[in-house]
Amino acid sequence: MERVRLGMVGGGQGAFIGAVHRAAARLDDAYTLVCGAFTSDPARTRASGIELGLDPARVYGSHSEMFAAERKRADAMEAVTIVTPNHLHYSVARAALEAGFHVICDKPLTTDTMEAADLVRLTAASGRVFAVTYNYTGYPMVRQARAMVARGDIGTLRVVQVEYPQEWLAGPLEATGHKQAVWRTDPAQSGPGGAIGDIGSHAFHLACFVTARVPEQVLADLTSFVPGRSLDDNAHVLMRFPDGARGMLWASQVAHGYENALRLRLCGETGSLEWAQEEPDRLWFAPADEPRRLLTRGSPGVASEAERATRLPAGHPEGYLEAFATIYTDISRAIRSHPAIAADAMFPSVVDGALGVRFIAAVVQSSREGNRWIAL
Amino acid sequence: MERVRLGMVGGGQGAFIGAVHRAAARLDDAYTLVCGAFTSDPARTRASGIELGLDPARVYGSHSEMFAAERKRADAMEAVTIVTPNHLHYSVARAALEAGFHVICDKPLTTDTMEAADLVRLTAASGRVFAVTYNYTGYPMVRQARAMVARGDIGTLRVVQVEYPQEWLAGPLEATGHKQAVWRTDPAQSGPGGAIGDIGSHAFHLACFVTARVPEQVLADLTSFVPGRSLDDNAHVLMRFPDGARGMLWASQVAHGYENALRLRLCGETGSLEWAQEEPDRLWFAPADEPRRLLTRGSPGVASEAERATRLPAGHPEGYLEAFATIYTDISRAIRSHPAIAADAMFPSVVDGALGVRFIAAVVQSSREGNRWIAL
Amino acid sequence: MERVRLGMVGGGQGAFIGAVHRAAARLDDAYTLVCGAFTSDPARTRASGIELGLDPARVYGSHSEMFAAERKRADAMEAVTIVTPNHLHYSVARAALEAGFHVICDKPLTTDTMEAADLVRLTAASGRVFAVTYNYTGYPMVRQARAMVARGDIGTLRVVQVEYPQEWLAGPLEATGHKQAVWRTDPAQSGPGGAIGDIGSHAFHLACFVTARVPEQVLADLTSFVPGRSLDDNAHVLMRFPDGARGMLWASQVAHGYENALRLRLCGETGSLEWAQEEPDRLWFAPADEPRRLLTRGSPGVASEAERATRLPAGHPEGYLEAFATIYTDISRAIRSHPAIAADAMFPSVVDGALGVRFIAAVVQSSREGNRWIAL
Amino acid sequence: MERVRLGMVGGGQGAFIGAVHRAAARLDDAYTLVCGAFTSDPARTRASGIELGLDPARVYGSHSEMFAAERKRADAMEAVTIVTPNHLHYSVARAALEAGFHVICDKPLTTDTMEAADLVRLTAASGRVFAVTYNYTGYPMVRQARAMVARGDIGTLRVVQVEYPQEWLAGPLEATGHKQAVWRTDPAQSGPGGAIGDIGSHAFHLACFVTARVPEQVLADLTSFVPGRSLDDNAHVLMRFPDGARGMLWASQVAHGYENALRLRLCGETGSLEWAQEEPDRLWFAPADEPRRLLTRGSPGVASEAERATRLPAGHPEGYLEAFATIYTDISRAIRSHPAIAADAMFPSVVDGALGVRFIAAVVQSSREGNRWIAL
Repeated sequence: MERVRLGMVGGGQGAFIGAVHRAAARLDDAYTLVCGAFTSDPARTRASGIELGLDPARVYGSHSEMFAAERKRADAMEAVTIVTPNHLHYSVARAALEAGFHVICDKPLTTDTMEAADLVRLTAASGRVFAVTYNYTGYPMVRQARAMVARGDIGTLRVVQVEYPQEWLAGPLEATGHKQAVWRTDPAQSGPGGAIGDIGSHAFHLACFVTARVPEQVLADLTSFVPGRSLDDNAHVLMRFPDGARGMLWASQVAHGYENALRLRLCGETGSLEWAQEEPDRLWFAPADEPRRLLTRGSPGVASEAERATRLPAGHPEGYLEAFATIYTDISRAIRSHPAIAADAMFPSVVDGALGVRFIAAVVQSSREGNRWIAL
Repeated sequence: MERVRLGMVGGGQGAFIGAVHRAAARLDDAYTLVCGAFTSDPARTRASGIELGLDPARVYGSHSEMFAAERKRADAMEAVTIVTPNHLHYSVARAALEAGFHVICDKPLTTDTMEAADLVRLTAASGRVFAVTYNYTGYPMVRQARAMVARGDIGTLRVVQVEYPQEWLAGPLEATGHKQAVWRTDPAQSGPGGAIGDIGSHAFHLACFVTARVPEQVLADLTSFVPGRSLDDNAHVLMRFPDGARGMLWASQVAHGYENALRLRLCGETGSLEWAQEEPDRLWFAPADEPRRLLTRGSPGVASEAERATRLPAGHPEGYLEAFATIYTDISRAIRSHPAIAADAMFPSVVDGALGVRFIAAVVQSSREGNRWIAL
Repeated sequence: MERVRLGMVGGGQGAFIGAVHRAAARLDDAYTLVCGAFTSDPARTRASGIELGLDPARVYGSHSEMFAAERKRADAMEAVTIVTPNHLHYSVARAALEAGFHVICDKPLTTDTMEAADLVRLTAASGRVFAVTYNYTGYPMVRQARAMVARGDIGTLRVVQVEYPQEWLAGPLEATGHKQAVWRTDPAQSGPGGAIGDIGSHAFHLACFVTARVPEQVLADLTSFVPGRSLDDNAHVLMRFPDGARGMLWASQVAHGYENALRLRLCGETGSLEWAQEEPDRLWFAPADEPRRLLTRGSPGVASEAERATRLPAGHPEGYLEAFATIYTDISRAIRSHPAIAADAMFPSVVDGALGVRFIAAVVQSSREGNRWIAL
Repeated sequence: MERVRLGMVGGGQGAFIGAVHRAAARLDDAYTLVCGAFTSDPARTRASGIELGLDPARVYGSHSEMFAAERKRADAMEAVTIVTPNHLHYSVARAALEAGFHVICDKPLTTDTMEAADLVRLTAASGRVFAVTYNYTGYPMVRQARAMVARGDIGTLRVVQVEYPQEWLAGPLEATGHKQAVWRTDPAQSGPGGAIGDIGSHAFHLACFVTARVPEQVLADLTSFVPGRSLDDNAHVLMRFPDGARGMLWASQVAHGYENALRLRLCGETGSLEWAQEEPDRLWFAPADEPRRLLTRGSPGVASEAERATRLPAGHPEGYLEAFATIYTDISRAIRSHPAIAADAMFPSVVDGALGVRFIAAVVQSSREGNRWIAL
């Protein structure tokens, strides 16, 4: 399969998530980075391009300039990755679709539900691929869990416990000028959600992906513990699912001792599943009245959905970059429309992205309006 | 210290918790079981007494008979343990106090807040010891956690995550006649709470004990997943603490893969703590910006409150019976009023018991009334 | 079943293992402590007797005095527990057998193989029960492992990895006068083995018990790391089993970070097992080509040998005292010769004790003679 | 830094380790694969080249052809990766050095100590970089452990426990024609070591790397458990280190339940360390008389040697490919001789490779000669 030609908006030198996207695109050799509009500062953009070994002519001052110039090239970029702060996703994504490019956008899709709905409509009209990088669903054992729920291994779903605690914002890091902290705690750049937007939306998507369900209603209690912080840094959410299942979601950025501790537990009528991001190659399965079993990536009996997302034998750890790369490689297959394999592609779409934006909005509304149930 | 002479109401042959109380009383050699009114069936009561090696003259047909007869003896029982189904706790406890005995009562204290309040009043007037066996606070590392919170090791409390999932009622076990399941799912015997009463109240007490705080308000969503069950078998509760801390409590008896998985996590401004009942000798401590530390029972640096509750060197596991015995031994010290050591006694009192009853009532009310905040 | 009347030699105030034996005897209510000869110091012996609530007339100045006096009583002690330092086991045990008492002796049985053999002979002639408290085989999941090996769950045994690291003697604790450290590092009191005798013999017995096999040969490398220590504090041993299985044993008392970390791993042709003393309620089972399973005490499917040694439901931790109590209770059944249940009794006998002494001797010899194979 | 132009010998379609080397080279964008001689079958070699997107003119029929052709190009490959079966390493590596290329060779370096010594000499004379991919030392927390030992965090080294159990050869997989199993169990292709060569040599190198020590003597007991297998599939090794430390090494390919369970434990006079490959981002540190600490990749206080090998924040798992890529990137720095950073390069050299070959030979000799000590 020929490599997809990729451009990038955002992600200049020093940006964390831009480097992650590039490594993810590179890992399975499914993309070539051909151009970028990395920052709004021409000198830093140029330096980023040189460091990445790009043709200087294809390092652009802005995304509009890039889209316009690339459209005219025979070897034009085919897809663009958007890794800017959240509040810029919408305008860049819209412009990319209008210019005819496939879009890969970091989450959350937008900071506003109207804008998100607009991108859903535009994508449908465009015939382009639009992916939102909820990267955690690229982990093989997450896909294993989804396959097991789908085939009935835990029976009717009853309880969904999902949590995503982190510790890095337990103090007023933004006051020190820490770049990642500053924009994440600024409503103008992040949107209305703090922890709930930055990581709660990952937890929400993970629960939806594995259960193949979306909650009907949420009830939330958001808190800002760090003095002076305007966005939430701790979120407690109750969820009700369509067929009677109930859930709890905890997202926190003030939880000492938790590095990146996304974790999902599902209890069904005939069994339970548990997965934790910090030990991603493992999935606990507790069938009723039998000993718990530790399923591992790459081991006998793992579902084909998980097997397909696996590079290494069991016991050879795969991690965050590999899961991210799986999302990227799945997207490349959809872009290439390879009929035999596109059917297997399993990545979060613009619709999933819009749902995440809706979730954030509903949680914020519930918390503001006295912790009442809000329909999604 | 002379052994405390103990009587028992309930706990005949085949009863789980009666045997646990007796082993707990025996383990540290602080009690002698001298009499009992084990069941309402004379033959089974007699057989229980024989099996326990009691003087047949002190195996009684009812608690009233026992209290009346024992009062007249020179070697009368001094304290009574009440291990009947929940709905009988009140009348037995009341009669015991009125007859002048110390009382050790299983939880929940009563099935009704009025009755609980009555016992608080009667106890105050009686000058007797009244203990409620929230046994999990007997674990040394729970006491270590309490000591650490008290001395400021995690700073201002922010988040309380407590959970108590079990699996044993995931199916309709009560329909098979299983004795433990039948009374626990019967409102007439258990009171208004199902999982929230049976185990949620343990989780609540644990959180209160370790944080030395009581939530001001709770908001709850209770569910009965097993068809035909009238009491909740899954409880999701949000909590608000007086000084701004927020909490989540999950209690479930339909969670496959969880045997007795009580777990408490506390996040404060400068650190976190985590304790799990199934690995009770361990306590995780995460101080800000330092590696997590695994504190263990019996190891250097453990607080005196934990050390005092320890029998064996580090690495020699203590378990459920030892923790239960620690509660019993603490109670015996209070009964003996040994001035030097009674100050160290640390066991749940009738006030704690009444608070637990109030918690159950508030949770049930919140769930019935549309999941709104209810003050405790 | 009537309680067994028990006497004790050794185990005065402050002795660790004496208190453990008494709690173990008491836990299941199968024994009554009736007399003792606790120390060679009359005052301390008396004080110990008072603290234990014994009849002062039955607190004796020496074991000979006790055996002589008790023989004459109608309510004489029936069995004696020997918890003196190792070098005294032989003479006390011999005298007890000659006086017609059942014997429960701490390990190692003796410090010398000749003496051990003598006790085996005397026991056979006496018709008395002689138990050696290798207490770790009282854990239910150890018995589960033994049952699984016996019924072929892991197929032909191939590899035995057993280890017992501790940290408490990593420094020259004996130089501070620490009582436990002093006698354990003194060949005159401990015998020829240091770590290999104190804990290596436990590891050896555990491996033999679970596999139902005894190594034919051992090859060992013993070291004394702490300056001035004459006995080994670290032991590396290779083992060859009769039917081709091979093993490694590591015992160490200088291993920081290990509290009491006895652990056994067995690999067979069709599966593996792993058990660790610090998480005693769990047993890992890895059948070929299937996910690992976590078996737990008290859960469905556990073998009757394990079930019988269980007091509490799954998830309610049992620990060191419970396992020790199981050994004691099994011994009491043998003493009572209750035909229906004695067949289930499963405790280490004088023969197991003698084998342990032989193991220590062989390991010491191998290490002294250039690390060559020594037959057991 | 300009990408290093890389060629590959071996590693055609379907080969496991070839794909791993390519992904490792690609991950940090430090190499460009420019040519290859992938198999001895021209059609499969061509197909491999096409799949990898290589210029067909640079897909060669043999390594000699490749070396000869590439030497003449202005854009010639600079380094060659050798991923053939073990018995071919020597001739290819020798030819590569003679042709002036840098060499990256999979382990073991050769199947014979003479050949290994020859490569050490040739490398010294050539002025080229020669790396042997003991990839596990690329893990950041392995480097953390090495830094901690070096700076004295555990004091004088006493005990080294290293093990590498796997399960995949527990049955006669080679009899099914399984390619990986066939060559690894064939002395003609693998050399004299089975499990000890394939994975024991990794364990040995890991222990040497972290302790910065090489054992002086080894004593080994090798076994072939699977009927018909001529090479060892289980290895038990005792080790003696120069300054008095003692060690045990267990390598097994018949250990059900162990996927790739390389694990190192070090006990020193003042502390211990433990690292396990299947949870590579974690390192346990037990300082004397203090709680155990769980150090994690990317967290505050981690040594610069570990920090430099880290791509992602703490809690975002890195795995096997990342560690392998770190080795590759370190090699690229040495090749580029970037003075500022080459000093940091930390990868196994031809000398380490030769030492591993010597280790395998000594272990095999010890086992054959009655399990006696053999000097390394």
